[in-house]
Amino acid sequence: MTESPTGPEGVAFSDPTYRAAVVDLLGVITYGEIAAFERLADDSKLAPSLEDKVALAAMASAEFGNVIKLRDRLEALGADAFEAMAPFRVAVDSFHDHTSPSNWLEGLVKAYVGDGLARDFYREIAAHVDVETRDLILTSLGDTTYSEFVVDRVRSAIEQDHRVGGPLALWGRRLMGEALTQAQRVAADHDALSALLAGGVDRPGMDLAALGRMFNRLTVRHAERMEELGLAH
Amino acid sequence: MTESPTGPEGVAFSDPTYRAAVVDLLGVITYGEIAAFERLADDSKLAPSLEDKVALAAMASAEFGNVIKLRDRLEALGADAFEAMAPFRVAVDSFHDHTSPSNWLEGLVKAYVGDGLARDFYREIAAHVDVETRDLILTSLGDTTYSEFVVDRVRSAIEQDHRVGGPLALWGRRLMGEALTQAQRVAADHDALSALLAGGVDRPGMDLAALGRMFNRLTVRHAERMEELGLAH
Repeated sequence: MTESPTGPEGVAFSDPTYRAAVVDLLGVITYGEIAAFERLADDSKLAPSLEDKVALAAMASAEFGNVIKLRDRLEALGADAFEAMAPFRVAVDSFHDHTSPSNWLEGLVKAYVGDGLARDFYREIAAHVDVETRDLILTSLGDTTYSEFVVDRVRSAIEQDHRVGGPLALWGRRLMGEALTQAQRVAADHDALSALLAGGVDRPGMDLAALGRMFNRLTVRHAERMEELGLAH
Repeated sequence: MTESPTGPEGVAFSDPTYRAAVVDLLGVITYGEIAAFERLADDSKLAPSLEDKVALAAMASAEFGNVIKLRDRLEALGADAFEAMAPFRVAVDSFHDHTSPSNWLEGLVKAYVGDGLARDFYREIAAHVDVETRDLILTSLGDTTYSEFVVDRVRSAIEQDHRVGGPLALWGRRLMGEALTQAQRVAADHDALSALLAGGVDRPGMDLAALGRMFNRLTVRHAERMEELGLAH
């Protein structure tokens, strides 16, 4: 294994709190991807056609593709990947248990909105970690090729029957609410992870005002996605 | 699109029966991969630990990885991928409906034995098609990195409790029986596909004796896999 300056032996990792935070961060992202894979694979059963099913299964499979890379990074940091994921299972599972789609369109909106939220959030956090970890997180989040499919399906469903729009708009708000609830829970339970946002040796930090602006950015982007789906309220 | 001598415009494809047979073959393999993905993703819920779940999900995801390549090839041949799959859905779904694992170990044995059977069978058929189609089929079948995990899990379960071996050996025979039943059904319903084995312009064919030897090879390899799992009878 070659060690770059920001690798497992790099400056940032000499701080045990920082290392713990990165392990937490990669743990929650990895378990998030596993859970997303499972739920998307499950939700693909709601698909009205084989074409639709394959499209959702492709999204599921793309989520899973990142798991291996994330696991390898955890192991390079000397962490047990499954131990790193364990503390986040309840929060991630709770999110999914509270947002189990009752029909195909809800499943599609969840895939799109949920994935988008997670992507935005991790991208924000990635600004606070070392370059190598950041690159891994950003490439893990790189794939957006499925958006077009979801937008097309949701928009044409609304065109065909305007009544589906209202409940789906509510559903989108519920997804955002549940995601924030669980994110807060994770932050409250994991000091190292919250400390990450406060900054440290050679990493920029965030004060309360900056944190507020971050949540604002997340909310704005969520609203943009809802609008793309034709679900602006 | 560049056309090689065995590409969609090649010699073999000037025979419409041959083209129909290749479309059938790719159709059944593609739907087989989609169904395998779905069922493995489902069966991963039976996993006793997150490690085990991730291992089965990785197998599911690997199956799905091939779907895109197979679909592209169908489209290059001017076929609609979903129309090509449609005639095989009943047979493939029947196989899975009749072999739904009732516990984690049955799921593992099915993943290993079912994947192995499909792999062997398609490899045999691949000998009868043009080089480009053959290469695609053989690379689609290339991934065997998960065998070790399944063999390890099944063998240690038997070591811990000898009584699990007997039912799992029966389960393996049932998987083989159901696979043959559905394969026969597919062959009987699809003349072009059966004709493929009989050979044609620039492709070697198989007589009844050769067909018998092929089934014998498949049976022998199935028995070898069962033995690797510690389930020889």
